[in-house]
Amino acid sequence: MKRKTNKVTLDALASLCKRRGFIFQSSEIYEGINGFWDYGPMGCELKRNIRESWWKSTVLLREDVVGLDSSIIMHPKVWEASGHTSSFADPMVDCRVCKRRFRADQLCEEQGQKLARDGNGFRLPDAVRCPHCGENGRLTDPRAFNLMFKTFVGPVEEDATLSYLRPETAQGIFVQFQNVLSVSRRKVPFGIAQIGKAFRNEINPRNYTFRSREFEQMELEFFIKPGADEEWHTYWVAERMKWYRKIGLPEESLTRYVYGKDELAHYASACVDIMYDFPFGVQELEGIAARGNFDLSRHQEFSGKSMEYFDPDTREHFIPNVVEPSAGVDRIALAILCEAYREEWVPAGDTVSEILEAEPGKQPPAGFELRTVLGFAPCVAPIKVAVFPLLKNKPELVAKARAIFETLRERWPCFYDQGGAIGRRYRRQDEIGTPFGVTVDFQTIEDGTVTLRDRDTMKQQRLPAAGLAAAIEQAMK
Amino acid sequence: MKRKTNKVTLDALASLCKRRGFIFQSSEIYEGINGFWDYGPMGCELKRNIRESWWKSTVLLREDVVGLDSSIIMHPKVWEASGHTSSFADPMVDCRVCKRRFRADQLCEEQGQKLARDGNGFRLPDAVRCPHCGENGRLTDPRAFNLMFKTFVGPVEEDATLSYLRPETAQGIFVQFQNVLSVSRRKVPFGIAQIGKAFRNEINPRNYTFRSREFEQMELEFFIKPGADEEWHTYWVAERMKWYRKIGLPEESLTRYVYGKDELAHYASACVDIMYDFPFGVQELEGIAARGNFDLSRHQEFSGKSMEYFDPDTREHFIPNVVEPSAGVDRIALAILCEAYREEWVPAGDTVSEILEAEPGKQPPAGFELRTVLGFAPCVAPIKVAVFPLLKNKPELVAKARAIFETLRERWPCFYDQGGAIGRRYRRQDEIGTPFGVTVDFQTIEDGTVTLRDRDTMKQQRLPAAGLAAAIEQAMK
Repeated sequence: MKRKTNKVTLDALASLCKRRGFIFQSSEIYEGINGFWDYGPMGCELKRNIRESWWKSTVLLREDVVGLDSSIIMHPKVWEASGHTSSFADPMVDCRVCKRRFRADQLCEEQGQKLARDGNGFRLPDAVRCPHCGENGRLTDPRAFNLMFKTFVGPVEEDATLSYLRPETAQGIFVQFQNVLSVSRRKVPFGIAQIGKAFRNEINPRNYTFRSREFEQMELEFFIKPGADEEWHTYWVAERMKWYRKIGLPEESLTRYVYGKDELAHYASACVDIMYDFPFGVQELEGIAARGNFDLSRHQEFSGKSMEYFDPDTREHFIPNVVEPSAGVDRIALAILCEAYREEWVPAGDTVSEILEAEPGKQPPAGFELRTVLGFAPCVAPIKVAVFPLLKNKPELVAKARAIFETLRERWPCFYDQGGAIGRRYRRQDEIGTPFGVTVDFQTIEDGTVTLRDRDTMKQQRLPAAGLAAAIEQAMK
Repeated sequence: MKRKTNKVTLDALASLCKRRGFIFQSSEIYEGINGFWDYGPMGCELKRNIRESWWKSTVLLREDVVGLDSSIIMHPKVWEASGHTSSFADPMVDCRVCKRRFRADQLCEEQGQKLARDGNGFRLPDAVRCPHCGENGRLTDPRAFNLMFKTFVGPVEEDATLSYLRPETAQGIFVQFQNVLSVSRRKVPFGIAQIGKAFRNEINPRNYTFRSREFEQMELEFFIKPGADEEWHTYWVAERMKWYRKIGLPEESLTRYVYGKDELAHYASACVDIMYDFPFGVQELEGIAARGNFDLSRHQEFSGKSMEYFDPDTREHFIPNVVEPSAGVDRIALAILCEAYREEWVPAGDTVSEILEAEPGKQPPAGFELRTVLGFAPCVAPIKVAVFPLLKNKPELVAKARAIFETLRERWPCFYDQGGAIGRRYRRQDEIGTPFGVTVDFQTIEDGTVTLRDRDTMKQQRLPAAGLAAAIEQAMK
């Protein structure tokens, strides 16, 4: 199906997400907590499908990658070694008048300015103003603010260990490199993958779930021989693009941002961001970086434990370099929702002659009505098949529909719905992105056939109930 | 297969778990961090399978339960309402001589004493001694120590919000009760399920992964009409026992502890713990509690938002009661590992005449050798099928084995292994609990048959390669 031309507005999307149980504000009954989000019944299935698809393609279907599930709280030395304690910080400024606090880089960007480096710190261009007070405000110099959440581990606060909630899952992989290498009997090149929560105390959480303080990462550290960085970096960018296509974010919906040499960290040799055009601008879903051996070397230095790999073929010892594809589950979920959201004008009756893309702010033409659809790729759709008896007060229809439902749900997440007009039931499934609908009607009783409805075309095909599973399986591909 | 009679020792289990990549100490290269654990390549697959099995049986295969994925950090008022801020505490004592700190209840238990309640606090029996200093120690009175990890949310520590890492996932469900109810269009009785991390700053983490500071819960809050508590509590205890059987913890391996009326919280009407006989004693895997409407009522009181349900049949308004099955993923993983671990004496040659249970500390009889097996139920086994060419230097065997491997792994997590003697390769799979092994040998080239090896009996059955998937599927049941 061709891409829609209208972008969804954040308001329309957030409204659907709340109404249909994708995303709620965390602690909403207590007026919320800034930067934290909950996923409702549909949202948590969407996220489960994203994770499962990533894990299958990254770990289960590869012989050169194994999984890991490391703890969120680690020894604080991990963050000294990784550099997060000293330099995982954002520059912030305060307005001396209104006392509001802002991220200096965001403030500059919003006002068409550029934050200048000044030695180890930053300098704010004179033209930048407090967005609240305007000319009357007076902004402080930028100061570094560490983004790691602190906590205290141990029974007495005074001598308890100050530790941190991990700001990324990657370091859990690096510190277990030798353990995983030895148990998995793998040779370089090989990778270790992890999915898990990470936390950053963002100064200014914003853009719905995009920049939040608690989020979920899917990270792969792929260990390689020094010198093979470019080859493997190129390989992983291509692999990751294939995966995005599979989950419903095709190449034409994404942008690749290739870092210039002057934008790279000193230890990195390449970095590509995979970006999506959100309602609030083009923003990063995933970064794929060739990080050299910076992390393993630092942990070797700080722990005194060797991070070297012995190559049985060349009989050399070396610290492997790493290529790191690092993706955000919440951002990918949000991009999938934005990409899938469509408003259409469809014929009001039962016959589907034509589907028109809705024009923002306008009424549908005569005989048409508005429908909202989430056109998810089947593999990420929370519910794969909905089963409906045409009428709920006909026991023979209900019994047959229930029997079909029971069979199909052993295989796929299914939904049974008998309440209300059939058209209304279809629309509810369209709004949560269910790709297939099965309707049991009076003809079913006569000849054992049912209709299979396609969410996108709204066309119904009649087929024997016994052939349903095979037809759905085929259509899923 | 009949249950083994010898219990595994914690040392033997921990050694296997490290050697085969199930469990590592967190931050091991920095001498570890007490109470935190990482799951290696096999451990994370085991946990994934436990979660998936629970989610499928609790959410996907039920029409009366939906899922939720709420944030770990919530508004601090949540914990005031739930009572965790004021009373989620353990009593602790210090030794004035050696300065060590202990949990008063554990100390009493270990010394055959009982911690006495004293008004709102506790009193230590005079006979209890410091386990380190003995008679010379002097213990303080017990003091309450809150188990929630604190953190600060927001850019400035002084006026940032003091908040907590959730000590349970349940409250995330209660605070979203109305949102989930309205989007899911369910009627009471219905449930909301969640899997996620929780954190408790245990004074004395111990017993391997059993009592740790970071752990994962699987919780269901099943909302019911007041008065139906006993019926639903009984129902859920039975449902949960069925599930344990499915994942390899049959009824005879578990103990049910039924709380006496005097042991229940004031708002609860029933509680049953499902317990397993670990090497360190009989301990809880899951608690199933009928909690009345305590949590919803408290959130109604603290938030000022109605937590009432409108019953369309009786036209009554009421706050639902709840039955809560609350299980620990890590504890279940540990119980599965303990239950699955066996040491056996098996014939040293190729023919399997007899398998004997190994006698601790003794040598196997002549002609026998020791094998270690994890006898996992197939549904939780990290790898379902291993595929072996008999010899790695015969290209026709390797090609055929690779082709079989490629087919099977689309369906199940599989492992291909061509390195070393075939007997050694079998043993490696036995140690990670792979239920099935497929061997491609010279007869395969002649007639297209392969052998399918059963992990437990070690018996091999010869069958056409084309029939493998069906045979494995059948054997999995």
